Amino acid sequence: MRTDIVSSGVGELSYEIREIVKVAKRAENSGLEIVWENIGDPIAKGEKLPHWIKEIVAETAMEDSSYGYCPTKGLLETREFLADLNNSRNGANISSEDILFFNGLGDAITNIYGLLRKECRVIGPKPAYSTHSSAEGLHANCHPVMYELNKDDNWNPDIEDLTNKIKYNPSIAGILLINPGNPTGAVYSKKVLSNIVDIANEYDLFILTDEIYSNIVYNGKKHNYLSEVIDDVSGISLKGISKDLPWPGSRCGWAEFYNVEKDPIFHKYVENICKFKMIEVCSTTLPQKVIPRVMSDNRYGKYLEERKKHYEYASNYVYDRMKKIEGVTVNKTNGAFYNTLVLEKEYLNEDQSLKIEDNGLKNYIETISKGIPNDKRFVYYLLGSTGICTVPLTSFCSEHNGLRFTLLERNMEIMNNTFEIMAEKIEEYILSN
Amino acid sequence: MRTDIVSSGVGELSYEIREIVKVAKRAENSGLEIVWENIGDPIAKGEKLPHWIKEIVAETAMEDSSYGYCPTKGLLETREFLADLNNSRNGANISSEDILFFNGLGDAITNIYGLLRKECRVIGPKPAYSTHSSAEGLHANCHPVMYELNKDDNWNPDIEDLTNKIKYNPSIAGILLINPGNPTGAVYSKKVLSNIVDIANEYDLFILTDEIYSNIVYNGKKHNYLSEVIDDVSGISLKGISKDLPWPGSRCGWAEFYNVEKDPIFHKYVENICKFKMIEVCSTTLPQKVIPRVMSDNRYGKYLEERKKHYEYASNYVYDRMKKIEGVTVNKTNGAFYNTLVLEKEYLNEDQSLKIEDNGLKNYIETISKGIPNDKRFVYYLLGSTGICTVPLTSFCSEHNGLRFTLLERNMEIMNNTFEIMAEKIEEYILSN
Amino acid sequence: MRTDIVSSGVGELSYEIREIVKVAKRAENSGLEIVWENIGDPIAKGEKLPHWIKEIVAETAMEDSSYGYCPTKGLLETREFLADLNNSRNGANISSEDILFFNGLGDAITNIYGLLRKECRVIGPKPAYSTHSSAEGLHANCHPVMYELNKDDNWNPDIEDLTNKIKYNPSIAGILLINPGNPTGAVYSKKVLSNIVDIANEYDLFILTDEIYSNIVYNGKKHNYLSEVIDDVSGISLKGISKDLPWPGSRCGWAEFYNVEKDPIFHKYVENICKFKMIEVCSTTLPQKVIPRVMSDNRYGKYLEERKKHYEYASNYVYDRMKKIEGVTVNKTNGAFYNTLVLEKEYLNEDQSLKIEDNGLKNYIETISKGIPNDKRFVYYLLGSTGICTVPLTSFCSEHNGLRFTLLERNMEIMNNTFEIMAEKIEEYILSN
Amino acid sequence: MRTDIVSSGVGELSYEIREIVKVAKRAENSGLEIVWENIGDPIAKGEKLPHWIKEIVAETAMEDSSYGYCPTKGLLETREFLADLNNSRNGANISSEDILFFNGLGDAITNIYGLLRKECRVIGPKPAYSTHSSAEGLHANCHPVMYELNKDDNWNPDIEDLTNKIKYNPSIAGILLINPGNPTGAVYSKKVLSNIVDIANEYDLFILTDEIYSNIVYNGKKHNYLSEVIDDVSGISLKGISKDLPWPGSRCGWAEFYNVEKDPIFHKYVENICKFKMIEVCSTTLPQKVIPRVMSDNRYGKYLEERKKHYEYASNYVYDRMKKIEGVTVNKTNGAFYNTLVLEKEYLNEDQSLKIEDNGLKNYIETISKGIPNDKRFVYYLLGSTGICTVPLTSFCSEHNGLRFTLLERNMEIMNNTFEIMAEKIEEYILSN
Repeated sequence: MRTDIVSSGVGELSYEIREIVKVAKRAENSGLEIVWENIGDPIAKGEKLPHWIKEIVAETAMEDSSYGYCPTKGLLETREFLADLNNSRNGANISSEDILFFNGLGDAITNIYGLLRKECRVIGPKPAYSTHSSAEGLHANCHPVMYELNKDDNWNPDIEDLTNKIKYNPSIAGILLINPGNPTGAVYSKKVLSNIVDIANEYDLFILTDEIYSNIVYNGKKHNYLSEVIDDVSGISLKGISKDLPWPGSRCGWAEFYNVEKDPIFHKYVENICKFKMIEVCSTTLPQKVIPRVMSDNRYGKYLEERKKHYEYASNYVYDRMKKIEGVTVNKTNGAFYNTLVLEKEYLNEDQSLKIEDNGLKNYIETISKGIPNDKRFVYYLLGSTGICTVPLTSFCSEHNGLRFTLLERNMEIMNNTFEIMAEKIEEYILSN
Repeated sequence: MRTDIVSSGVGELSYEIREIVKVAKRAENSGLEIVWENIGDPIAKGEKLPHWIKEIVAETAMEDSSYGYCPTKGLLETREFLADLNNSRNGANISSEDILFFNGLGDAITNIYGLLRKECRVIGPKPAYSTHSSAEGLHANCHPVMYELNKDDNWNPDIEDLTNKIKYNPSIAGILLINPGNPTGAVYSKKVLSNIVDIANEYDLFILTDEIYSNIVYNGKKHNYLSEVIDDVSGISLKGISKDLPWPGSRCGWAEFYNVEKDPIFHKYVENICKFKMIEVCSTTLPQKVIPRVMSDNRYGKYLEERKKHYEYASNYVYDRMKKIEGVTVNKTNGAFYNTLVLEKEYLNEDQSLKIEDNGLKNYIETISKGIPNDKRFVYYLLGSTGICTVPLTSFCSEHNGLRFTLLERNMEIMNNTFEIMAEKIEEYILSN
Repeated sequence: MRTDIVSSGVGELSYEIREIVKVAKRAENSGLEIVWENIGDPIAKGEKLPHWIKEIVAETAMEDSSYGYCPTKGLLETREFLADLNNSRNGANISSEDILFFNGLGDAITNIYGLLRKECRVIGPKPAYSTHSSAEGLHANCHPVMYELNKDDNWNPDIEDLTNKIKYNPSIAGILLINPGNPTGAVYSKKVLSNIVDIANEYDLFILTDEIYSNIVYNGKKHNYLSEVIDDVSGISLKGISKDLPWPGSRCGWAEFYNVEKDPIFHKYVENICKFKMIEVCSTTLPQKVIPRVMSDNRYGKYLEERKKHYEYASNYVYDRMKKIEGVTVNKTNGAFYNTLVLEKEYLNEDQSLKIEDNGLKNYIETISKGIPNDKRFVYYLLGSTGICTVPLTSFCSEHNGLRFTLLERNMEIMNNTFEIMAEKIEEYILSN
Repeated sequence: MRTDIVSSGVGELSYEIREIVKVAKRAENSGLEIVWENIGDPIAKGEKLPHWIKEIVAETAMEDSSYGYCPTKGLLETREFLADLNNSRNGANISSEDILFFNGLGDAITNIYGLLRKECRVIGPKPAYSTHSSAEGLHANCHPVMYELNKDDNWNPDIEDLTNKIKYNPSIAGILLINPGNPTGAVYSKKVLSNIVDIANEYDLFILTDEIYSNIVYNGKKHNYLSEVIDDVSGISLKGISKDLPWPGSRCGWAEFYNVEKDPIFHKYVENICKFKMIEVCSTTLPQKVIPRVMSDNRYGKYLEERKKHYEYASNYVYDRMKKIEGVTVNKTNGAFYNTLVLEKEYLNEDQSLKIEDNGLKNYIETISKGIPNDKRFVYYLLGSTGICTVPLTSFCSEHNGLRFTLLERNMEIMNNTFEIMAEKIEEYILSN
């Protein structure tokens, strides 16, 4: 290459949720059976789409029009359906023009941050969901800016920390809210949302909210939509069908833009996002076609209820078991399908370990465990010892140690067993030194 | 907004293929029936996927695994299938690891240019395909750099122009080749490809080729793959199923990387592209699953043959009719499904027009036709007068005047009629002043 | 121009201290005699260099070696003299290698900020000295980041504000301290300096201090050098001869780098600053040659004492007179040669004015006074009414209203008269509506 | 440092003219007497300013006004004097407003390139003068773009190469011309200048010319000013007093802007350069004051004539001696005070050497001579063997091998001796292997 073509910054990207797979594959080669608790793919964990949904998809696949391009913003009838859905709640009204489909929220996120003026920042929660924090950092050629979620207060935002970081850093132009939280499973009250809106209002910011899990809320809680409390503040809500149907492989998500006309700068920014999508022509058509049929089917609600019962069970099981362990801080999750345990720092050190049967694997785990955070060390040993594959909390930009795992396993025996083994191994690891 | 969030540069993006739609919608509102010849969506033009392909898709849609995430690079079995397909030809060999799936080539293109070091450039053909040229310009915050395709030599690359621009501009790090050409329909000989490879070799560049139309070649020609002639040069080929199956709405395309290990800078660059896809998790799963089943079905070849016959007929019909018009330069297309006519500049002026029945529409067309390129003016009048919606050649970054339209219409009577009207209207317009 | 060559951002630069001159020139053309209180040029205000200093310069000008280039960092003997001077105080020791000469502090400042990584920031005081704030903003393509100086506490830094802005904004990499203050005239106690050092220590920042006025301290105060308290923190002190000798036209200043070896990042940064100077070859030679001779002359101390007496007199005169005005907040200055009055906001409005004799000038002042900050309005009316040319406080990036003027006038009668007129006009203006 | 403050790119800067000094100092420590032929400082080579010039400077130094700031653009009377000087020739007329003083041309150059829009380029000559090429490369974060000077045609610009690079690289917005040339000593004919102006005209570029040596032209040649042939093209000429008086240590140079009003983009750009100088207040005053007095003194012309005779003698001496050496290409210089010899590549290899007496120095030279260009190797051996300090041609961005040395030595015996030794050592080195 006569000239360097490598852009600086990108090389720094990491996405531990996927990178841990390399270690797990190594363990699998040593004969271990891997229990994939690292990634939130319900399908991979045995979740079955109801037959009727698959039938709708299959039927739609027999229509020729399902194969063509759709308009740049997405199919009109689907956008109208989704606008109506939003408008059926109180709060900010939108039209079909305020919705833009993406090829999944990954696509949405990289474009939304990527098209921000380089000098301005969006502050997001910590523990962070890596796609957001990586995209923010890449955009700014810097570490992402983040506010604390409080492990001792059900992972609610630390409003004081958030306010101070905004007040004292004029580069911040927007606030990211992931609700329900990933990786925390927290579901925010209307009061928390209103606090955020008040801050955005006071400092003249926009709000970006990731509501991909808005239909996965349980334990008697209810999801409060940003649009219900946003008032006149500029806002973007990200939604999709990855988690609900669940159809993560569809890469079908969308952005809802609130109060676009009320701020000319926000308006211009949103227009640019749409223009950029236009040069990619449009997003994927088939899943968009399916959305109104599935979501307006009266079997859909019942189906979601049934699934949420499962997550509720898992949520409580984990909570009840883990809270007994000294050194562990656990919050009961009320939404999404992960739990994030905190392993308190004073209980971890560099000399702890778990027994690993296979010698080659043992050596490998020992080697890669040098000079890494203590929770990553535990995650490696848990993986090498049991095949359970989780993600260390520090890889979510958190200063806390801990781990994230899913609540997805549909085989109850396997699930209970996995949680039990995890609990025992945490206890054993802590006591090992 | 307390701080400006609007990134400079993006506002300049344009994509005439989609923007002309606004004018057409206005004409439609005046009662005209629009003949959409602006965009290459076979589905929209009445192309029917064979029943057996739709059945494969529908069957695949009944499998639960079709709904989950796939690996970041794409489904392993599909990548292996595609690697084998490539390796069955002579030339550069690849493994499944050298393939990366994207959500359509739009996604591929914005990422491939977006991840280049800002200071280096990829030179592309002119007339340009807007997604490429916009992405290149956006990446460099500049006009795209381009080499001439020669209208008087079947739209072959002007090798002297290309060589000079590379030789004398050290910022150029790569060459884009669209083969078969869009918007030109040219299919390049092995000699042309070898010339490009030789240039890349001499100046130590990589080659990016867009081969999305590689299966749509006719008039007795054969597609020559970049991989067949690339030798040791670093290369990227973009392919997909938008045009073959045709399933443009799938947003399913992929990049094949050639000789990744042979240049450490290229290697690092390709790794960054994969890492960036990782933070978006993966691309869409269902279409990937379908690819091996469809492409290895022995009905597939016959089906493509049948479609190519249609394009061949249309290609020849257009050529024979248009070459009779004084002031028009037309090349017979041998691939893809567009024809790009050149309206020679000395035959156009700002006072020509066509009769538009509806008075409101007439006023509208007159108003928007002021101060624009002469070919755009013709395109507007053709649209207002007949409802036929085409794209002006100048909007493909060309200095030539002309227009691009599709060869897709499957109703032969409508198609012949459309071409005949276009021909007559060109004649009438030229003579109008 | 076939391509745009205008860099964004620069167009936004403003330097009111020089821009007010245009308005003053207009007033001069109307027959007013201008009293230039806007810029700190002692020479222009009648300050006379002692004959012996001029003789040293003239004698040095007869030596051939005074005309050649000097080493990139500056003349070795002068750097050794200055290093010794610094080392004669307690605190951070430096060698001649830790000193780099610039063509005045303007040159130093634009380079020091310009060579910072674009994504990191230096927080400076507000009211700001425009050369610093413009250079910081230009470097970051953003508004400068600033901490408050407290008008109700002798313009001392608001340590809480500073701490919060650093704590909550991780982009901040350095703190700027102007001591003695410009435009405030504040002289900081050792405790204030230690507070700043502690903050830099805690958050691992470097300190940039502008000590150009370090020899102009009076009212019984003493200048505390950053080097005396800096401990192990990375630091840069800017010094020069513009204000002492005074020889502003020499464009001769220098940077002293403290603890360069103790932080590898700081070391690299300092090296880059030196390399950048190397491509400009070196800074001006003659003034450097003169420095040791003048500064080691025993007449020098006495001369400075005599001048400081004058500023002390002016400082107290202004303070005693201005504190009597309702609506004015005034701090007694202890260093440098400006006073910055605050005109409390509730005493100003858009309908106040002063009588302007000349009708053309009156119209001009009325026209340019529309839609501008209230203090700028006052400054214009004062100029149009009396010829006294000052600088509005808001043009120092301050939210306070007020004005800065010099204490330089050496003709006592003129000086007293000027201050008296200013005081009266403030009173008159406030009462005018 | 909690965050990285090191800007990328700057670390790459090099300025061999100053960096060779480190090696020479090492040689000096081994007891060699160094003959400094690396840098164009006439003063250091024994050039004496005439007594009358020094007297003017000394007298001016006794005036108080010499010590104050001057206007941002420079002293009005000096700018008027220089505008008149330019206007006394035919060609582009300027007013005092079209002149901007800098602290030497180094300051001018870094600002002129630094304020260009990042995406546009100025093509300069090769061999390059490092201050220009470094500043261009730093501005663009790239290798500088350059056109060839032809060693086989008296170092005239290769117009074909220049035209092609401009024609085929649309990023180029300006052409740099160094006339008389540094390091080549070439003086361009009116025809060459007109060719450049024609190219700028055809491609709508601006011209930047460095005319610092315009008064140092001999061998019967005459300097042709850009302003004489520039017609309506936008242009900047850089001039100064470093080489004429000679007063390099003054850091006093200026830019003359031609046809500012004729192109609005150029106008805006020039305004930005002035604004940027404003935040640095102004450039150095004393030398500006001296300019009209010295230059309008009738002794000045005679003085320059006398000096040029010396350079003419040296120019011819070098030419006559060096042209006899096989393997050397030498052009007779007609301006400036350097000669740049080409050592033809086929005469150099990595095994050649010269005898170095001191063993420590020999080891040092052997060590640093590994893996470097062959001409740099020769320069090191020449230095180690004889103490003569020159600069390798490759460090002026040239692909040719060779060396640059000055014609400044005023002691004729020393000068002749130095040239003779250089010639002999070149012969000896070439024959050594």
